[in-house]
Formats: sequence, structure tokens, C-alpha cells
Amino acid sequence: MIRKIGFIGLGIMGKPMALNLLKGGYELKVYDVVENAVKELVNKGALSAVSPEEAAKSADAVISILPSDNIVETVAVGKNGVFDGLKAGGIYVDMSTLSPETPRKISKKLMEKEISMLDAPVSGGDVGAAEGSLAIMVGGKREAYDLMQPVFQKIGRNINYIGELGAGQIAKCCNQIIVAQTIEAVSEALLLAQKTGVDPAKVRNALLGGFAQSRVLEVHGQRMLDRNFEPGGRVSIHKKDTEIAMSIAAEFGLYLPGTALTSQLWNAASSQEGGSDWDHSSIIKLLEMLSNSKAIHGDN
Amino acid sequence: MIRKIGFIGLGIMGKPMALNLLKGGYELKVYDVVENAVKELVNKGALSAVSPEEAAKSADAVISILPSDNIVETVAVGKNGVFDGLKAGGIYVDMSTLSPETPRKISKKLMEKEISMLDAPVSGGDVGAAEGSLAIMVGGKREAYDLMQPVFQKIGRNINYIGELGAGQIAKCCNQIIVAQTIEAVSEALLLAQKTGVDPAKVRNALLGGFAQSRVLEVHGQRMLDRNFEPGGRVSIHKKDTEIAMSIAAEFGLYLPGTALTSQLWNAASSQEGGSDWDHSSIIKLLEMLSNSKAIHGDN
Repeated sequence: MIRKIGFIGLGIMGKPMALNLLKGGYELKVYDVVENAVKELVNKGALSAVSPEEAAKSADAVISILPSDNIVETVAVGKNGVFDGLKAGGIYVDMSTLSPETPRKISKKLMEKEISMLDAPVSGGDVGAAEGSLAIMVGGKREAYDLMQPVFQKIGRNINYIGELGAGQIAKCCNQIIVAQTIEAVSEALLLAQKTGVDPAKVRNALLGGFAQSRVLEVHGQRMLDRNFEPGGRVSIHKKDTEIAMSIAAEFGLYLPGTALTSQLWNAASSQEGGSDWDHSSIIKLLEMLSNSKAIHGDN
Repeated sequence: MIRKIGFIGLGIMGKPMALNLLKGGYELKVYDVVENAVKELVNKGALSAVSPEEAAKSADAVISILPSDNIVETVAVGKNGVFDGLKAGGIYVDMSTLSPETPRKISKKLMEKEISMLDAPVSGGDVGAAEGSLAIMVGGKREAYDLMQPVFQKIGRNINYIGELGAGQIAKCCNQIIVAQTIEAVSEALLLAQKTGVDPAKVRNALLGGFAQSRVLEVHGQRMLDRNFEPGGRVSIHKKDTEIAMSIAAEFGLYLPGTALTSQLWNAASSQEGGSDWDHSSIIKLLEMLSNSKAIHGDN
């Protein structure tokens, strides 16, 4: 049974997830390069560690959620990393969004100590992390997944075992492919309504009752109407995620023209001042720019 | 109050809609070029007419649902058309999917007799028509809409007044823009899963719980997994609808790259043998073709 957890990465996602684990009764030893984030967790009852290695020491499992493939690799199998600290037979769960190759590569090293690895990326953003309602998509050995189930239930609601190591990342990649293109679709529709003199709010409302319904039309559609481009989901993150998709497409010879289009639009958004930190629903701003349109509501 | 209705167009959509109106207690006089369709309605208690003009005579309102702008125009204001038969002050409701210009053009003529026109395209397909659960998007004068409300409630569930004449068509156009791109998005995601060795059914299931959720992922995603490309929504219809969107985009100077892409994909689907009559979820077949992929399930 998992009782002691090393937790690495206390960013926008990691901090609320770690707090939910503390609330759920787990013993946490946390590590982050940002000291204030560590202090906040210590004030709520966590122990602090000076390295990933120390966070992993005496833990039953280690969880990390970090911004890039390189950082995860360093934390997992670099100097003073999880590999050095975690006991043989322990479980290492990375919940970052990565190329599916990265967990497979890391796992090869971890196998030397019979450490099981799971890749378990999440969807639902900082709001889902705070509510403990994240969707979690898991790849790796089924036994390790079963052991981690009670832990996952403290941070997420929709928890799915997808398949072998890397399969969680594939599912997350599919998620990001769909979300990007649905944002594009909703942007085009609301822009067309506005530009032809029809109230986009009424159109959104009507469409929520039919085949055009989606969570994106609900959530991001409303953001577009409100001109609220505070993230939420950052352009920089979604840009990275569609780049992962395009690199898988190149490797496997896949024709993904819609993903290619959205990937280009993230490039364009990033080229705007401050654009990397806009919410991903800001695709509509690019379409407006190229359509010489007034903003659909207000003039942001 | 509306009691007597002329009903023109007894195709896949019109026939079940007319049947629901009969069940709902309205007096119907029906017209279609296909005699068997007319007979079926007469057997259920409708009267038959030899022309749109006759269907309109003594009616409080006329409803049409027909395959193209030209046919609607002919039926409405051509020889022996609705204009010739309908009493002054009557209501003409066209429920076809058209360019927003067509109802405006027809209405100019109808105004000579103070006939009010509504454009009221529907979403939900033949299944929604049979169940009486269509989404109806209505443009035109508010008073005419209010008079028709009880009639709409016999054929649809999600009934929305959008704005002036043509606004219903704009909303429908927005609907088709979103549905097309969401089908594309889901196709790309399920193809990527399959090709990388991950079960697309598990991925679909996991994604239904997060931001990638949509009616299309539910309904069309399942069709893709089942390799069920019987329509449903025909490629030929969706091709026409995205062509309307592209022509609005050209007129208003709108940049709609995702719609352009799906419009091209409908062209490609139509170029396949029998492709015009495939269900629109068959976009995945085109992607598979260009990715030299096995079908995601089975080998259809």
C-alpha cells in the first residue's frame, strides 16, 4: 500500500495536486526549485527535500509533474535524481505531458532497480487540479496502476488505464489534438456569426443543444464571448503539445492536416506580444486579425 | 393560431417531420414530386396537393424542407408556388439548409402579399426528425416566430430564435463548420492512437471525461470505431454546407482555414466511389488512405 509519496514539481498544476494528497492523508516529501512553493506545502504539513533523490528516499512512490521532457529526464535519472533515491520495487509516476518516447527511455534505466514507471498525464487545467477533478490517462504496468489507484482518486475523477508505458501520453496527445481543433472550429463559427451581424452568444447557445455541442463550445466559447484570455490553458503549452503530435505524425507517417494547421496557429499566437501566455481560446484573435474584424465583443 | 399547414418536401427529413405534425393534431396538405411519399402521408390522414400553390391554399402557414436553394426558390415564388396560393398575412417557413441570401431574396417577393417568412434550418438528422427532437434555429420576425412556436414544438426540442431573416441559416452554417472540424479532429486523434498501437476505443472513452468531450466524439467517434459509414449525415450534404460557409467567408473577407480544410476533404471524399453517400464520419477513411494505415477496426 502506498503511504509515503515523494512529490516533485509544485507549479500551477503540481501545487494543488500535492495539497489534495496531503488532505487525503498521504505523507508527502516535496521538492521544487522555487523555495516559496516548497514552504507553502511545508506549512500544510509536508516535509521538504533538497533534491529529487531525497524526496524519493523512504517513499513508496514518487510523483512528478514538470514542464518539459528534459527536466523530467534530469529529475528522474540525472544526478541526485529519483533513481538514486527510490527503493528497489518502488513506483515512479510522471504526470507531465511529454513525448511518449521519454517515459520509455527513462523506464529502461529505472528497471535496473525494478522501479515501475507509469506515465499519467492529466487534463482539466489548474481548475481541475484545485478541485481534484482531473482526467488522468495512465500507461504502464497494470499492477503498478492498481497500487496507485487510491492515490489518483485523491487528485482526479476520471481515471483511465490506457495501456503500456507511453499510452497515457498518446491519449493526452489525442486530447490536445481534439481540443486545439475544436477551439479553432468554435472560433471560426463565432467569428462568422459576428461578422455577418448575428449575435454569437445566441448562436453558441443554440448550438449547445445539437451535434456541435462540446466542452470547448461551453467553456472556451464563453471565454471568447467574454474576451477573457487569461489562462486557463496557455498557448505555449498547447504549442508544445501539438509539436509532440506533429513529431509522432512524422515518425509514423500520419497525415494530420488539422493538427498541422493548429500547430501553425500556435506559432502565430506566440509571435504576438505576450501571446505565449494567452489562453488557448485566443485563436479567435488571430482569425479576427486576418479578417480585419472588430473583436466579437468589446475591443480587447 | 395555426391549424392548417401546407407541407412541401417529404424526403428523409420532411416525412418524419410531417408525421409528427399530423400526430400533433395539425391539418396537413402535403406536396412532393415523389408520389409514394405523398401516399404514405395521405394514409396517415393528410390531404394531398398537386402543386405548392394548392398545398398553400387555405393554409395558415406553409412549411418546406428541400434539398437546394434553387428548388426552394421555385417552390416558394416560382410558377404555381407558395406565393400564388398562400393568403395575405400567412406565414412561410423554410426549414432547408440554404445560403442566408436565399430567404432574404424570397421574402422580398412574399412581402407583396404581406406573407411573413422564417428561415428555420434544423440539426439532428433523420433520427432527430423521427424522434421529434430536432434543434431548430430560426430567423425572421419575432411575431411570426411566436405564432409558429407550438408547431415547432411538435418537431423539435431545442428551439432557438436567433435574429432577423437569414440568421437561422447563419446559425446552421456555424453548426456545420463546427461539426465538420470536430469530425476531422476526432478522426486524427483515433488514427494517431491506432497507428501508435494504443486502443482507440480506450482513448475515446478516456477523452469523453475531459475537455475533448463532444457529441461528435460520442456519436461519430463510435461510428468510426464500428466502421459504420452508413448515413446518418451524408458527405454530399456537408460538402454543400461548407461550400455555403466558404462563400460567406469570401463575401465578408473571413479567414476560415479550418473550414477550408474540411471543405477540401469533402471534395476528396466525394471523389471516392460512392463517397458522396458515405456518412460524414468517413473523413477518417481519407486520413487512413493518406497514412497508408490499416482501418482502425476491421478492414472496411
